[in-house]
Amino acid sequence: MSDVARLAGVSIKTVSRVVNAEPGVHAETAERVLAAIERLGFRRNIGALNLRRGSSTGTIGLVLEDVANPFYSGITRAAEEVARRHGRQVLTGSSDEDPDRERELSLEFCARRVDGLIVIPAGTRHGYLVPEIASGTPVVFVDRPPGDVIADTVLVDNVTGAAAAVTHLAAHGHSRIAFLGDAPTIFTATERLAGFREGCARAGIPFDQRMVAMGPHTAETVAAALDRTDATAVITGNNRITVQTLRVLAGSARKPALVGFDDFELADLLDPPVSVVSLDPAELGKAAAELLFARLDGDREPPRRIVLPVRLTPRGSGEVRP
Amino acid sequence: MSDVARLAGVSIKTVSRVVNAEPGVHAETAERVLAAIERLGFRRNIGALNLRRGSSTGTIGLVLEDVANPFYSGITRAAEEVARRHGRQVLTGSSDEDPDRERELSLEFCARRVDGLIVIPAGTRHGYLVPEIASGTPVVFVDRPPGDVIADTVLVDNVTGAAAAVTHLAAHGHSRIAFLGDAPTIFTATERLAGFREGCARAGIPFDQRMVAMGPHTAETVAAALDRTDATAVITGNNRITVQTLRVLAGSARKPALVGFDDFELADLLDPPVSVVSLDPAELGKAAAELLFARLDGDREPPRRIVLPVRLTPRGSGEVRP
Repeated sequence: MSDVARLAGVSIKTVSRVVNAEPGVHAETAERVLAAIERLGFRRNIGALNLRRGSSTGTIGLVLEDVANPFYSGITRAAEEVARRHGRQVLTGSSDEDPDRERELSLEFCARRVDGLIVIPAGTRHGYLVPEIASGTPVVFVDRPPGDVIADTVLVDNVTGAAAAVTHLAAHGHSRIAFLGDAPTIFTATERLAGFREGCARAGIPFDQRMVAMGPHTAETVAAALDRTDATAVITGNNRITVQTLRVLAGSARKPALVGFDDFELADLLDPPVSVVSLDPAELGKAAAELLFARLDGDREPPRRIVLPVRLTPRGSGEVRP
Repeated sequence: MSDVARLAGVSIKTVSRVVNAEPGVHAETAERVLAAIERLGFRRNIGALNLRRGSSTGTIGLVLEDVANPFYSGITRAAEEVARRHGRQVLTGSSDEDPDRERELSLEFCARRVDGLIVIPAGTRHGYLVPEIASGTPVVFVDRPPGDVIADTVLVDNVTGAAAAVTHLAAHGHSRIAFLGDAPTIFTATERLAGFREGCARAGIPFDQRMVAMGPHTAETVAAALDRTDATAVITGNNRITVQTLRVLAGSARKPALVGFDDFELADLLDPPVSVVSLDPAELGKAAAELLFARLDGDREPPRRIVLPVRLTPRGSGEVRP
């Protein structure tokens, strides 16, 4: 503790007060102490639990892109279930892919003393959470890894999934395959693009940048992206893009083969039924919440990165011949 | 106030302390004062706001059936948006249509001092919330009215919607119309059944109990219910039953006309596109949250019942001829 006191320029008594969440320390001084603790890697020695400020509020915070999106509402429901088993409840907030909003929500949750935080990052900078993590609030990142901080993260195997989609389409005779992905600032989008490239390489299909569009989210932009290619097959990078693509194709004479990333309700009842690469979002929510509660229950192992497997579900749209 | 003081056996000063949320009153005494206030119907005179215990926790609680159901996640998102504008965040909990779980979640939220509560009732008894409402926590019920308590409620016009579905099907030549509704313990289910009867009466179709099944939720029970009828058209009572019915019909030679209650994503891309009676769940969530925040902002009018209109969206499945 004397190292921390020296670095922070305070007395050992003050460090002890901060560590034990005793009153009488100015916020600014506490911040300095926490920063010093962080810099010296002091956390693991004294145990994060001791650093927790105040008592449990019985809540965990969940920051996601949009709770109305079935992918995220599935995660929410699973997190709720796990939280319930641990006697906690879940605060949710939708960031709309806005890094500032993600930061604002996360810090608001922390200010309200959530016991822990699950974040689906919108941004790539998470240094703002270092003081929270250092003071003992566990944070688990889901679906995308954090930037600026090493923390527990639960991901899905995007690369393998996208490569499997290419392999599936190539096996059905396609070599002109378009990839309609999410914005390139989004981790899962670039991973899936990397998987697409890997799949093309494995299938002996030369990678062609003109077959790739990153970020089309409306029917208009999807239609424009498809019009620019002579693709006989399409891979869509998430459930929102799949739905927009289905709308475009419904009004078009072109009927390319299609494999979508993320499953969605009624995919099997469309004509043709839509083949997907997917993971049940409940598995993601469950894994993240269980990791969070393991931390709250005293798990002090180094930060973990869990990568959940995805599976290809062939239903027909991926078997359409060129 | 002297009546309250007499009934509670305390001084007027103590009543004033409780009403103004000042410190220095034992919890038990405060409870006695609040009970006396409740008994004397004192609430409206002094204003619920003054009765609020302690300061804002910045959260509102939302108890719903299942946040993974798109209908409820739409409500959640809208409530989040309104809460955000008012600087609050949203705790969610899924009751799974279990009245005990609804009660448990609601009381847990209150114990965590939410500023207000939005409840989609699973049960019909809500007397347990009277002390919370009396002590100044506003509660808004959504989609279904509460039992045992008069409180703010936001509903949709189920009767008119179901009647409109019958009128639409009758206009396309149907007189053998089946109604597959939710469990008869659920308010919206019995209202929609009443609308079905009303629509039949208006169209000159004799009501036939054998055409009604309340509660089928799986493909098997939906199939069994349909097998028992010679219906040429079907009205499904909510989005879950519509989806199960579509699965059954996909594997059946029978192709009755169909109108579903609640809209759902991709309804327009199915073959035939599915006609629905619907309300955007976001409108319901927005109306409920705005009413809640009006109460938090000092609205002291008597409890309100808002009934939002629904609309019939014809897409093709309702126009299938017998």
